[in-house]
Amino acid sequence: MTYCLAMRLDEGLLFLSDTRTNAGIDHVGTYRKLHVFEPDDDRVVVIQSAGNLATTQEVLDRIGRDLDGSGESLANVGELWQAALYVGRVANDVVDRHQASLARSGASGTATFIVGGQIDDGEPDILLVYPEGNYIRASDDRPYLQIGERKYGKAWLDLAVRADADLDTAAKVALSSMVATALSNLSVGPPYDLGIVRRDAHRIDCGRIEGDSPFLDRLSQVWTDHLNAAVEALPQVEPADTTFLAPDWTSGNR
Amino acid sequence: MTYCLAMRLDEGLLFLSDTRTNAGIDHVGTYRKLHVFEPDDDRVVVIQSAGNLATTQEVLDRIGRDLDGSGESLANVGELWQAALYVGRVANDVVDRHQASLARSGASGTATFIVGGQIDDGEPDILLVYPEGNYIRASDDRPYLQIGERKYGKAWLDLAVRADADLDTAAKVALSSMVATALSNLSVGPPYDLGIVRRDAHRIDCGRIEGDSPFLDRLSQVWTDHLNAAVEALPQVEPADTTFLAPDWTSGNR
Repeated sequence: MTYCLAMRLDEGLLFLSDTRTNAGIDHVGTYRKLHVFEPDDDRVVVIQSAGNLATTQEVLDRIGRDLDGSGESLANVGELWQAALYVGRVANDVVDRHQASLARSGASGTATFIVGGQIDDGEPDILLVYPEGNYIRASDDRPYLQIGERKYGKAWLDLAVRADADLDTAAKVALSSMVATALSNLSVGPPYDLGIVRRDAHRIDCGRIEGDSPFLDRLSQVWTDHLNAAVEALPQVEPADTTFLAPDWTSGNR
Repeated sequence: MTYCLAMRLDEGLLFLSDTRTNAGIDHVGTYRKLHVFEPDDDRVVVIQSAGNLATTQEVLDRIGRDLDGSGESLANVGELWQAALYVGRVANDVVDRHQASLARSGASGTATFIVGGQIDDGEPDILLVYPEGNYIRASDDRPYLQIGERKYGKAWLDLAVRADADLDTAAKVALSSMVATALSNLSVGPPYDLGIVRRDAHRIDCGRIEGDSPFLDRLSQVWTDHLNAAVEALPQVEPADTTFLAPDWTSGNR
């Protein structure tokens, strides 16, 4: 599995991806899932990928090849939603080509993507591209998207991700969500790739955080301390807080 | 969906279930999923259920009927693991009976159960009964079990559930996990049914916490305050914490 998330904030965009892949529990690898395209000074396009690794790699290779051609590519699409449709179409082409042989082995070749960035004077945006090739945007109320193992770390994002959060705080929250997910699920793991696209910069700042980083230790320690303090501070369940619930089957009383 | 969890602590057992059921988003109901059997003074058996509602109801009706018969029942099994196998066998009988017609409509009739309690002078225990009818115990390191929507609230349990936790603290943590799940997923919701079986008591204390309970408000407020404080206290990601990650495709640099 995989866990990738992206946020669309007033200051700009944030992307965070883990790097663990697995084809069965005894075939675990480390692959980059945060991909950056800066084909020209007027644009930056980020693609995060989850799903079949062979599919996502061929999709990225085709996208790279298209940059050099004269047809549609990330270098010439006019708006970000067109970039999302383009990625979805390339992904469908790849899956279609291998569909018959994948079906024979019972494997699924599908992949899901987050496409984000800024093109020219368009708004910075993030879009989730489904395996079917269509897309959705993040909402204004919950300005984030997730792909892969999205359930374990969702509570952190719901708590703290608002459009007016600053990018530094957003990075802390994103990494907290990532670390919580990795603790709960072996198929998500470090290193973690973090990318930040500031509004109108048309470029990305990218960094990798290794699994043995002291930063991750400090982050986990702050969470453990505060969560334990919260458990201490929680109210007790008092009898007045509950209504009586009769056993549904008791001796002689069905 | 559903979210049920159970803990096996030194002091005794704790069970918590939501009550929301849905067959499609426009068919939402409230059904009890925490079921208690106290057929005799020497035993208490708790059954939590997730999955097909028709299956779980027929399973519970058959278990109730068996209490009055002379065959195997929760009134006469000698150990808790035998109770788990018995529940699994009843569930398989129910699913088998409806299998053909369920398959015609493409529905799954399977159900998953947590069976817990204490029989005579046996150890209090909790077991997860799979749709296949076999079971697993909770581990000593992570002495809890979950069925249904288990991912959203797992981090709370991993953080705080140890066998030596007291039942009052365990109840706080269990309800925190439940509330976090309900916030993240509409298919889990109040009221919540809480049951506590103290060691060697051979009976359960059961209470229902309604969705509009002031207790749940206080609980959510404590979590929100502490999580926000944690976000404030988290370390910043400094450049020294990351290694440079080159864009993989840039203009003229593939």
